[in-house]
Amino acid sequence: MPSGREARGEIMTVQQPPLTERFFWPESMAFVGATSDLTKLRGRLFAFTRTTGYTGKLYPISSREAEIGGYPCHARITDVKAPIDLAVVAVPAKYVPDAVEDCAAAGAKTVMIISSGFAEEGGAATELQARILDTARRTGIRIAGPNSEGFWNGVGNVCATFSPVIETLPHDDMPHAAPHRRIGIVSQSGGMGFAIFTRGRNLGLTFSHVVSTGNEADLSAADYMGAMVGDPDTQVIVMLCETIRDGAGFCRAAKAAAEAGKPVIVCKLGRSDAGARAAASHTAALTGTHSAYRAVFRKYGILEATDMDEAVAIAAAVATCPLPRGRRVGIVTASGGGGTAAADIFSDFGLSVPELSPALQARIETLVPPHASALNPVDTTAQGQSTGPVSAEICEMMEASGEVDMLVAIVSAAREKSVSLEPGRIKAILERGALPMLAWTYTLASKHAKHTAAQGGSVLSTDARHVGLGLSKLADYADHLRAPADDAGDPGPVLTRPPGARVLSEYEARRWLSGYGLGGAGDVLADTPDAAIAAAEGMGYPVVLKIQSPDILHKTEVGGVRVNLPDAAAVRAAFGNIVSNTAVHAPAARVDGVLVQKMAPRGVELVVGVVNDATFGPIVMLGAGGVSVELFGDVVHYPAPFGPARAEALLRGLKSAPLFDGFRGAAPIDLAPAAALISRISHAAAAGRDIIAEMEFNPVILHSDGSGISVADAVVIFRD
Amino acid sequence: MPSGREARGEIMTVQQPPLTERFFWPESMAFVGATSDLTKLRGRLFAFTRTTGYTGKLYPISSREAEIGGYPCHARITDVKAPIDLAVVAVPAKYVPDAVEDCAAAGAKTVMIISSGFAEEGGAATELQARILDTARRTGIRIAGPNSEGFWNGVGNVCATFSPVIETLPHDDMPHAAPHRRIGIVSQSGGMGFAIFTRGRNLGLTFSHVVSTGNEADLSAADYMGAMVGDPDTQVIVMLCETIRDGAGFCRAAKAAAEAGKPVIVCKLGRSDAGARAAASHTAALTGTHSAYRAVFRKYGILEATDMDEAVAIAAAVATCPLPRGRRVGIVTASGGGGTAAADIFSDFGLSVPELSPALQARIETLVPPHASALNPVDTTAQGQSTGPVSAEICEMMEASGEVDMLVAIVSAAREKSVSLEPGRIKAILERGALPMLAWTYTLASKHAKHTAAQGGSVLSTDARHVGLGLSKLADYADHLRAPADDAGDPGPVLTRPPGARVLSEYEARRWLSGYGLGGAGDVLADTPDAAIAAAEGMGYPVVLKIQSPDILHKTEVGGVRVNLPDAAAVRAAFGNIVSNTAVHAPAARVDGVLVQKMAPRGVELVVGVVNDATFGPIVMLGAGGVSVELFGDVVHYPAPFGPARAEALLRGLKSAPLFDGFRGAAPIDLAPAAALISRISHAAAAGRDIIAEMEFNPVILHSDGSGISVADAVVIFRD
Repeated sequence: MPSGREARGEIMTVQQPPLTERFFWPESMAFVGATSDLTKLRGRLFAFTRTTGYTGKLYPISSREAEIGGYPCHARITDVKAPIDLAVVAVPAKYVPDAVEDCAAAGAKTVMIISSGFAEEGGAATELQARILDTARRTGIRIAGPNSEGFWNGVGNVCATFSPVIETLPHDDMPHAAPHRRIGIVSQSGGMGFAIFTRGRNLGLTFSHVVSTGNEADLSAADYMGAMVGDPDTQVIVMLCETIRDGAGFCRAAKAAAEAGKPVIVCKLGRSDAGARAAASHTAALTGTHSAYRAVFRKYGILEATDMDEAVAIAAAVATCPLPRGRRVGIVTASGGGGTAAADIFSDFGLSVPELSPALQARIETLVPPHASALNPVDTTAQGQSTGPVSAEICEMMEASGEVDMLVAIVSAAREKSVSLEPGRIKAILERGALPMLAWTYTLASKHAKHTAAQGGSVLSTDARHVGLGLSKLADYADHLRAPADDAGDPGPVLTRPPGARVLSEYEARRWLSGYGLGGAGDVLADTPDAAIAAAEGMGYPVVLKIQSPDILHKTEVGGVRVNLPDAAAVRAAFGNIVSNTAVHAPAARVDGVLVQKMAPRGVELVVGVVNDATFGPIVMLGAGGVSVELFGDVVHYPAPFGPARAEALLRGLKSAPLFDGFRGAAPIDLAPAAALISRISHAAAAGRDIIAEMEFNPVILHSDGSGISVADAVVIFRD
Repeated sequence: MPSGREARGEIMTVQQPPLTERFFWPESMAFVGATSDLTKLRGRLFAFTRTTGYTGKLYPISSREAEIGGYPCHARITDVKAPIDLAVVAVPAKYVPDAVEDCAAAGAKTVMIISSGFAEEGGAATELQARILDTARRTGIRIAGPNSEGFWNGVGNVCATFSPVIETLPHDDMPHAAPHRRIGIVSQSGGMGFAIFTRGRNLGLTFSHVVSTGNEADLSAADYMGAMVGDPDTQVIVMLCETIRDGAGFCRAAKAAAEAGKPVIVCKLGRSDAGARAAASHTAALTGTHSAYRAVFRKYGILEATDMDEAVAIAAAVATCPLPRGRRVGIVTASGGGGTAAADIFSDFGLSVPELSPALQARIETLVPPHASALNPVDTTAQGQSTGPVSAEICEMMEASGEVDMLVAIVSAAREKSVSLEPGRIKAILERGALPMLAWTYTLASKHAKHTAAQGGSVLSTDARHVGLGLSKLADYADHLRAPADDAGDPGPVLTRPPGARVLSEYEARRWLSGYGLGGAGDVLADTPDAAIAAAEGMGYPVVLKIQSPDILHKTEVGGVRVNLPDAAAVRAAFGNIVSNTAVHAPAARVDGVLVQKMAPRGVELVVGVVNDATFGPIVMLGAGGVSVELFGDVVHYPAPFGPARAEALLRGLKSAPLFDGFRGAAPIDLAPAAALISRISHAAAAGRDIIAEMEFNPVILHSDGSGISVADAVVIFRD
C-alpha cells in the first residue's frame, strides 16, 4: 500500500473533497451552547478545542456570557457576520431545530449536532429530527448527528467532541512514530469509536480523523467513509457500524477505496440475535442480515473484524506493513514455547510456518546456540541476554531468502530499559517493502518496548492472535487487489411482475424465468392422470410428479411430491395420491395442476437462493452437498449480478468443494454449466431487483454421470 | 468452587502432600553455584531469595567466597551438616551430575536444576541427563529440571528462579486483592509460565506457585499438577505443556482435581504441524496427537485454552466466580455499542443474552434515562456521568430475578480517578454465590479501574472475547461437575495377538473380536465362485463380495469390492472380476478368499475408529454422515473404555446428530444398538491396549428402516 505522502509535515493545506472541506477541515467554528462551566459537556466541548492547537477562527455562541476563555461571545450565531464552516450544536433537543435554522441563516456550511433526544428516543422526539432534516434539504446545510459524540481531526487539531479520550490526549504517554499511514475511524458508537482510537494509539498507530456518526439524520457513515477515501491524510479506514443506511453509497465508497488502495476494515455489530436486538433498540434502525453484509464485504475486499480489538489488530498490520506475496511466515523467537504457541495460532488463521531450507538453516545455525532450533520457528534461546541484533540478522536472512512471505519477531518485553528489537533494522525491512513484519511479546509490554517498536515504524502486540489475524487479513487484502475483476455475465430480458401473483410455483417460476435459461424445457403441467401418463410416455420413465400451487411453498410436507415413478400405473397411482393428499393437508390451496418432470439422475446437489436485502439489494446464496448445507451451514453469499467465472470461484470456495473434484473415487464434475446457470440466476435477481423478494432453486443437481445439470425445483416470491 | 481457606493469613504451617513438602515448601535451601556477582544468573538467583521474604534457612555453596549477603558459604553441600530440603543447582552442565551426587550425599530431599545443556541439546548431553536420573533412582532424591527457569512459591516466598518477572515483583504496581482463589501454574516453557503469571497478576489474580518443569528428567508436569491438587493453597491449576510424558499420572491428577473441585486449565502447545515441529525440536520429546489430548481433557472436565491469554481469561473466571446454573447472560452497559458488541461475542461462545421479562424491564426502566434500553443488554447511556450505583442496582435486580445465570458489567475505564464500578456490591454478588460476574471495559483500563475491580474480588478485562470465553468455560466446568459419572459398560474377554499377524482383514478381524459381539454372524469366506453362490443363496440376495487379504488395507482401490449383487450370475461375474483385479493391482498380496456378506440396507453411516495413543492409550473416534466426516471433520474422540450411555452422548454431540432424529422427514433412529456396539469396541480397544495399534469399523450403518445396524467393514492393525 504505497502512500505518496509518507514524508509530509504536520499540517498541509491540501485540496479536500467537497463534503469534508468545511467539515473535517473547517477554517472557522462556532459553538452553539458554549459556556465557561466545565462541569457541563458543552463547556468542556469548547474548552477542548481551545487547548488542542486548532488554528482557525472560534466563535462561542452564548446569550449569557460576554466572553469565554478570551473569545468574545455572540448571543446568536447570526450575529457573527463572518464565514462559518462548522457550527457545533450542544443545546437541549427542543432548541436544536431552531438553532439549525439559525446556523443555515448565518451561512454555516455544516453543523455537528452533539445533543441527544431525537430518533433514538422514538415518539415525539423523532419529529424533532425530521425538522432538522427538513432544514438541511431546504437550505443545503449539511448535518452531522444528532446524538453524536462529535469528531476529531488529529492532523488539523480540530476538536468537535466531548470524548474524554481526546481530553486526555495532550497528557498521554503513548508510543508515537510518524509517519505511519494514518487511520480514519467512522463509528456509529461514539464510545467505541474513540476506544478504537485509544487502543490503536496505545500500539503507536497514527490517526487522521475519528467521527461519531450519531443518528445520521443527514450525513451517514457511507458519506464519511467516502470523504476519507478522498482524503489524502487517510490511508486506512476503520468503520464500526450497527447498520448501513445507504447501501449504494457504501458500495460506491468501498469500490473507490479499493481503487485507491486504501484498506477498509469494518466491524459490524449486531451479528447475533441478541446483538441485533441491542442494535435495534439502540439506533432505532433495522439491522441488516449479516450474510448480506458479508457478501458485500467480500465483493469489495473489505476486511471484516468481529470486534473492536480485531479491527485494531488488522489496522496495525495494514497501516505498518507492505503487502505480502503469500502466507508463509518466518518466525524468530526468544522463547521456544512462544514460537510453538505462535505457530499454532498462525496455523489457525490459515498461515503456514514452513521449514526453512537446509542451506538457510545452516547459515542461521552459525548465529544461535547449539541447542537452538533453526527449523522455523527459529529459536534464539534468550538465556537472559539481548538477542536483538541476532534476531534482526535472522530476519534479514529470511527476507533475502524468498522462503517466507512475512516475518514475526517474538520477544520478551517486560523490562523497562531494554528490549531485543532493533528499530532501525525493522524500519529498513518495512521500507524495502518485500515482507510485512510484526512483533509479539509473550510478556506484558513495557513503555520502553512499545516506544522502541514505534521507532521502527512497527507495532508490538501482546496478543499473538492479533498478529496472526492481522497478517492473515493483510494477505486477504493483497489477494483481493491481485484478483482479476469480476466477470459480468450476460444480462437477460426485463422482468415484469405477473398481475396478482405473490408466489410463483415451480412451473410458473420457470416459465417466468425462461428468458434466463431457467425454463423447464420438457416439463408438462397435467390436470388429469391420463395427461400425466401421456406426458411421461413422451419424456420417458422414470418421472417425478409434483403438485403445483402458489399457496403451497413446501410441497413435500403436504404429500405433494412422488419421485422415481417407473411406469404408467405408478404415475396414475401417484397422481391420485398427490391430489388427495393436497386436498387433506391444504384444502384451501389453489391447485394449478400436477407437474410431470423427467427424473433427474443422481449427482451433487446445489442449493441456489436469492434474497433481496433491504440495504444492499439482491444477494445470491450458494450451498452444496445436500444435508451439509443445513448441518454445517456451508453456504456462501455474493451480491448479484455476476458472471460465470465468479460463480465458479464461489462454488470452489465451499467446504464441500471436494465433492466436485472426484471425491471418493467419483468422476470430477465440469462446473461450467452450473456456473453459467448461477450467473443467469444472479442476472434475473438483478433484473427483478424492484419486484422480487426471494427466489430459490433447490436442488440443482450436477449429474455424476456427466450428463449435465437439472434444476429440480424453483420458487419465486415477490415483494409485498 | 467453594474454598475453605479463603480467609487465611499469609503463611500457614500446613500439612503438605509428600512430594511437595520439601520442594514447594522447603524449610531450608542450599544454592549450589551461589555467587555475589549479580551479572550472573546464579548470582541473581540467590539474591532474589534473600530479598523476597523467605523465612527458612539459606546455605550458599561456594568454594570461592566466604560469605554472600551475610550468609556464610560452604565449599561443598556435604559440608553443611544440617537438614536441607531443597538444593538449587546452577553450575555448568558438566558439573551437575557430581553436584547432584553431592546433594544426595548431603541428605537433600529435592534438587531444582536450573542449568541447561542436557537432553535438549541431544548427543552427549543426553548422557549427562541420564546420569542425573540414575542418581535419583539410586538415592531417592527427587529432581526438578534440568534446563528449568525454576519455581516460585508466592505464599511461602520461596524463590528458586531467575525469572525477571519475579525479580521485579516487589516493585510492581499490580492490582491486588486477597483473598482470591489462588492459581498454581505448571509450565513446560519457563518464559510463558511466568508470562501467564504476570498477565494474571495484571488483572488482580492471586497465585500460589509457578513452576518451570524444564526437561523433566525425574519430576514431570503431572507430578507438579498432582502436588497442586493436594495443596490447600492452590484452588485453580493452569498448565502450559508441549507434551505430557506421564499420561497415566496426568489422568490420575486430573481425576483427583475434578473430585477436589479444582478446575484445571490446560494450554497445549504444538496443535499445528508447525507448532508440533517447534515443540519437538524444543523439548526433545514427541508431541502427542492433539485429538488424544482433547479426548482426555473432555473426559476429566479439563478446560482447554488455545493460547496463553485464553488460559488467563479462563483462570480469571474460575478464580473469581461461583459456578453458573446455565448460560444466560445479563448485561448492563454504559455504551449501547459496547452492549451490542458483547452480545455478539457472547453468542459466538454459545452463551445467550435473553430478553428480560416485561416486569423486570419495567422496574429497570425506572432507573435509566428515557431513551435507554432495558431489554438486555441494559443500556444505562453513560452521558459522561457515573452510572456505578445504577449499574449495581440493575445487576442486583437481575440476580434476584432468576432470569439470567451470569452477569457482565460494561464500563468506560479510561479515567484515572473514577470508574463506574461499585466494588462492595460486586463482592456481595460474588459472595452470595448465585451468579458469576465479570466486567469488561471497551476503553483501556486505568490503574484505578483495575484496582477498583480487584477490591470487589473481581477482574476488569479489556477484551470482551476473554469475558465470553471465561464464562463459557465456567459453564462447561459446572456442566462437568453436574454430569453423571461415565457408565462402565461390560468388559469382554482377554485378547491375545494371533501369531504372525500385523493386519487382520475384515473376516479375521471380526472373528478375532467375536467375543465383543463384532463377529459377522452370517458372513462366509468363499474360495470359489460356486462357494460364493452357495453362501449367497443361503443368506439371500442382494449380497456384497470383498477380497480378504492382510496385505490389502484399501480394498476398493484394488477393485476388490462389488456391492448390491442381485443373483447367482452377478455373484459369479463379480467373484472373477475381484480375483483378477486383485491379481493385477496387488500381485504380491496373500489372498485368504472372498467374503460374502448380505447387502446392508441404506441408512446413516458411522465411522468408529480406535488409535492407541502413545501417551494416553486407546482413544475411540466417532463420526457420522459419510462425506461430512471428511469434508467437515465432524468427529469426536474419547478415551476407551466406556459404556453405552457415554457412547450415545458422544454420538449426540456430533454436528451431524440431527441425522439421527428424523432429519428431512426420515424416521428417527434408535441409537441404543449403535451405542452398545461402540461401547463393546471401546472395551475391545482397552483389552487390546498392549497389542492393538489401530482399529477401524467403517462404515457402521444405522438402518433407516429401523432394522438395526450393520458393521460393513472392519480392520485391526497390531503394534509393530
